[in-house]
Order: sequence, then C-alpha cells, then structure tokens
Amino acid sequence: MSKHQPIVFGVAGGTASGKTTVANTILQAVGASQVAYLPHDAYYRDMQHLPFAERARLNYDHPNSLETSLLVRHVQQLVAGQTVYVPVYDFTHHLRTTETRPVTPCPIVMVEGILIFTKRKLRELMDVKIFVDTDADVRFIRRLQRDLHERGRSLDTIIQQYLETVRPMHLKFVEPSKRYADVIIPEGGLNKVAIDMVVSRLHVMLAEQGYPAGANQP
Amino acid sequence: MSKHQPIVFGVAGGTASGKTTVANTILQAVGASQVAYLPHDAYYRDMQHLPFAERARLNYDHPNSLETSLLVRHVQQLVAGQTVYVPVYDFTHHLRTTETRPVTPCPIVMVEGILIFTKRKLRELMDVKIFVDTDADVRFIRRLQRDLHERGRSLDTIIQQYLETVRPMHLKFVEPSKRYADVIIPEGGLNKVAIDMVVSRLHVMLAEQGYPAGANQP
Repeated sequence: MSKHQPIVFGVAGGTASGKTTVANTILQAVGASQVAYLPHDAYYRDMQHLPFAERARLNYDHPNSLETSLLVRHVQQLVAGQTVYVPVYDFTHHLRTTETRPVTPCPIVMVEGILIFTKRKLRELMDVKIFVDTDADVRFIRRLQRDLHERGRSLDTIIQQYLETVRPMHLKFVEPSKRYADVIIPEGGLNKVAIDMVVSRLHVMLAEQGYPAGANQP
Repeated sequence: MSKHQPIVFGVAGGTASGKTTVANTILQAVGASQVAYLPHDAYYRDMQHLPFAERARLNYDHPNSLETSLLVRHVQQLVAGQTVYVPVYDFTHHLRTTETRPVTPCPIVMVEGILIFTKRKLRELMDVKIFVDTDADVRFIRRLQRDLHERGRSLDTIIQQYLETVRPMHLKFVEPSKRYADVIIPEGGLNKVAIDMVVSRLHVMLAEQGYPAGANQP
C-alpha cells in the first residue's frame, strides 16, 4: 500500500498571459513523466446538437461552456489512483470527438486554464494555485499575433471577438478569480525567478510525499 | 577562499500588508542565524537640524525620506563579506540615534520595506523580489487598529495621515513598484502555500551556493 498523495497544482491566467508556457516549463523541470496534465479546454461541452454556424457563435469564454464537473471527477479519480480518459476536443469544428486521451495517475496533477479558479469544487481540490498575471494590452497583442499568423483570422474578427466575449468574460470571471491564487506570477513564461520557486516547492512536496526523485530532480 | 554568494532577497508591500509577518515567518523557517535583516525604515534620513514639530510633519512615505544609497552600500558590503553598521532610528522623536546595529555577513540578505522596489540600484542587487499584496481597505483597517491600540493615536489623526500621505504615496510609489516583483503574494502572513514556496526556493538556492544546511533545513 502506497501512502503517496498526488499534489494537485493549478495554473490559471488570462488569455495569452503566458500560463501555458509556465505550465510547460514547470512540466519540463519536474519531468513530464511526473505530471498528469489536464487542460480545462479539453472539457468544452459537446454541442453537436447545434449546427456549426451556431456553435461558432457560442461564448467559449464563459464558465458554462466547460464541463467542469467532469474535470473535477477526473482530478478526484487521479488522486484516488485511477486512470482517467480526458475528452479530445476538435477546435476547428467546435465538437468533442469520440476519442479520449488516457491519463494515468502521477505524483503531480496539473490543471490549467483561464477559468479553473472560478468553481469552488475544483479550487478546493488544489494544493497550490498559481495565477499568471500579464497586462491586458500585452495579452491582446500576443493573442492578435497568434490569431493572425497561426490561425489565419482577420484583424476585424479578432478585435470583434476580443471586445464581445474575451474581454468581458475576462473582467467578469478570470480577473476576480485571481483572488483565489496562492501566488501571482507577473509576466508569465519569461519569469525564471518565479518558475524556479514553483519548481523548488514541487520538488520538496514530492519528497515529503515520499515520491522517488525524478529524472530532473536537482 | 569561499565561493558562497549570499542571496539577496527583497520583501515589499504596502503599509500593513503583512510583509513583516511574511519576512519573519521566512526568517524563522530558514533560521534567523542564516539571515542578515535590513529593514528599509532603519535608514530614515537624519533630520536633527529641524525642530520636532517640523520633523513630525515630514512625509515619511516618500522615497526621499530614506537614505537608500546607504542601504545599497550595506547590501553590497554584506555581499562582499563585510560587516555593516545599520542605523538605529528613534521613531518617537523622529531622529537617527548615534547607535548602530552591527550586521554580519549571512547566506541570505533580507531587505524589507514599502519602497524597496522604487530604486533601480537597490532592485538590481536583489536575486528574488517578493511583493505582499493585500487589498487597500484591509490594510487601512489593520493600520487603524495598530495605531489606535499600540501607538495611542486618535482616529482623526490616523485618518488624516492616511489620506494626506500614506495613501497618495502608496498610489504614486508603492503600487507601481509591484511591477518589479518576481512573485506577488496575496494576503501576506497567512498565506502558508506561498511562504512554503519561498522557503523551499531559498533552501535550494542556499544548497546551490554550497552553504551548509541550517538548523531548520527540512
């Protein structure tokens, strides 16, 4: 019988705040094999009963667009030592596919997304809550560049979506949820001092739980 | 010849943010004997050429009220392995006394104060910069209670000082300096998750510098 208790670690932050970079850097530093990675946006609700044009118009920045209850169950199952099957979402067609991604129990369960601190049940499962905080103008510029170059969207579409849903939902849900963070990391992925701090803490917590040192243990 | 390089660690935050509690908790956790503690407010300028009534009216929340150049020199000297003599300030009479407090070189140099991130020269000496962030209303209430009960000031005096100097100087100097923090800790001294993170990082940094494990090493 193992007494190891996985560490549940949440990384939130606004769109293009650098939270994915922070999550990936931490994941590399503690060793990817140590981490069960659960991105919140894999849990978008399945809206296949709606035609594509309607699905495309949905507000994907509202907490209700996500099946957070399933994410909560997956975190609980991983902590209990069970494998979970994470939905695979098709972002091009706005559909949940029939595929799933099996995720096996790991010393660290990492939950990532803009809205992960908005639901109390999910927050209460987390041992460490990090919020990556980057100024709104910088976030908009990064999102603009990404959507222009990587997603081939038009400038007008990007601005319209930002002003109509992204920004109001950020102000209504994401920004207030910063209050629940244990630690706020300014400027995201480039903040080595902060990331080193998180990684040091995770190593100590893993050792306290009696997990063997991973490949990247210092 | 030792190759140990002391770690310079800054703790800032508004008045009554809980930064002193954070600093003390960290100091206890890593071992007080490991830490050279330099509070910025020991470095208030000597104003003995002014009569008491004028000294009492000075704006002690403005960066110019502090001899930061001396603090910078002390940090540099401690890092170079030299003992420094920290001024002892008499807060009752608003005077720098003729006494000094000797501070010997230690693995960690901890600089603490509301304005320590406002001067570039001091910031650049710091390896880790923490800002303790607590809402302004909560900070005012804590300051009110402290000044009423511990310092015997009147309610009107406290409010007047807060609105005339503390608050405007906070908005002008303290709040903008948050931008320079590596990590922001919400709610100060009660935030165990964040303090554990800082302490874990300091232990790792001490080990990296080849310092022997202190009494409180986990």
